[in-house]
Amino acid sequence: MDLARRGILIILSSPSGAGKSTLSKRVLEDDDQVVFSVSATTRSPRPGEENGREYFFKSREEFEDLVNSGGMLEHAEVFGNFYGTPLAPVEDAIASGQDVLFDVDWQGGQQIRNSPLSEAVVSVFVLPPSIAELEARLQKRGQDSAEVVAGRMAQSSNEISHWAEYDYVLVNDDVDRAEEDLRAIVQAERLKRARVTGLTGFVSGLKAEYEAMQ
Amino acid sequence: MDLARRGILIILSSPSGAGKSTLSKRVLEDDDQVVFSVSATTRSPRPGEENGREYFFKSREEFEDLVNSGGMLEHAEVFGNFYGTPLAPVEDAIASGQDVLFDVDWQGGQQIRNSPLSEAVVSVFVLPPSIAELEARLQKRGQDSAEVVAGRMAQSSNEISHWAEYDYVLVNDDVDRAEEDLRAIVQAERLKRARVTGLTGFVSGLKAEYEAMQ
Repeated sequence: MDLARRGILIILSSPSGAGKSTLSKRVLEDDDQVVFSVSATTRSPRPGEENGREYFFKSREEFEDLVNSGGMLEHAEVFGNFYGTPLAPVEDAIASGQDVLFDVDWQGGQQIRNSPLSEAVVSVFVLPPSIAELEARLQKRGQDSAEVVAGRMAQSSNEISHWAEYDYVLVNDDVDRAEEDLRAIVQAERLKRARVTGLTGFVSGLKAEYEAMQ
Repeated sequence: MDLARRGILIILSSPSGAGKSTLSKRVLEDDDQVVFSVSATTRSPRPGEENGREYFFKSREEFEDLVNSGGMLEHAEVFGNFYGTPLAPVEDAIASGQDVLFDVDWQGGQQIRNSPLSEAVVSVFVLPPSIAELEARLQKRGQDSAEVVAGRMAQSSNEISHWAEYDYVLVNDDVDRAEEDLRAIVQAERLKRARVTGLTGFVSGLKAEYEAMQ
């Protein structure tokens, strides 16, 4: 029986190369109740990018107005451009029972956990089985230079140091098993009593049935 | 990767006829990390019952000593006999990473939630899809008289009124789906960071790997 429920915010963080993107992609493909969070940015659209699909493209002023009015769930500046998640579409999604997946670093995770939507947050940190394996995965992608790989490795040590801020931790030594674990987490979190808004009405119906029997 | 973890106490409550026993049985059969909690009782063993298997058989004095020394996780008096769960074997089980399943009513559930093991508790309430369905299931068992069924129905209304004290609520309109949901809950709860005691050592190992690289 599918009772009405509030959606959850699934925060997925990990050092790059630990398999977070693959896990996100699989969950989004296999679970039609989960949507990906679309970020806003002040950088210019690249060829082929569409407003509202890759990003919501905003002027610096629009972006700052949103931040100042509390309209951003999280935001950060990267190489002079702002990136962030507008609050309103996320609120609408979870009110209608959709879950929203966030692929963010520990700083984004902290901001979302401290936001007005903190009750809806389910945070998952993905660890690599070893650092050697992490490096091997980054090198195998073949898309990054040795310098970029070295930079990501330095960053990963900092990212990993925040593992204990997350509700759940997965060690991704087998991507099928990690996906299964992530799906169990999502399924269980949806079943939490406090999230299933339809339960109160459902139990009232049971009570009415008892009364009608007497 | 299976890191060391503390076990969980799975509290399963429901009005009789909602399918709790079937769910317990399936989880115990299919998941070798879950064991059933063996109760202690002051009633006499029946033919074929074995101490430590169906029950731990105790004298009234032994039982009361355990209660008074805080050695009982929960207990109740039923028709002049005491029934309860000794704390020590449950503590040993969860320390070694085993999960313990409790098939208890809301009063037993409350006592376990308020016990020294409260951190390990995961409580699940199973609701029937309707009261008519509940009655039909009780009648279909064929093992109880009309009076007993009527008594259970009266009791079920009281039991159901405690649904909101549980972490998770399942509506059992399809036992396969309810089992799948229960298994997702168990799997997710095992992955909670705070329960996976092996994580701290594992992350220290990753840190040592970084340091060795420099």
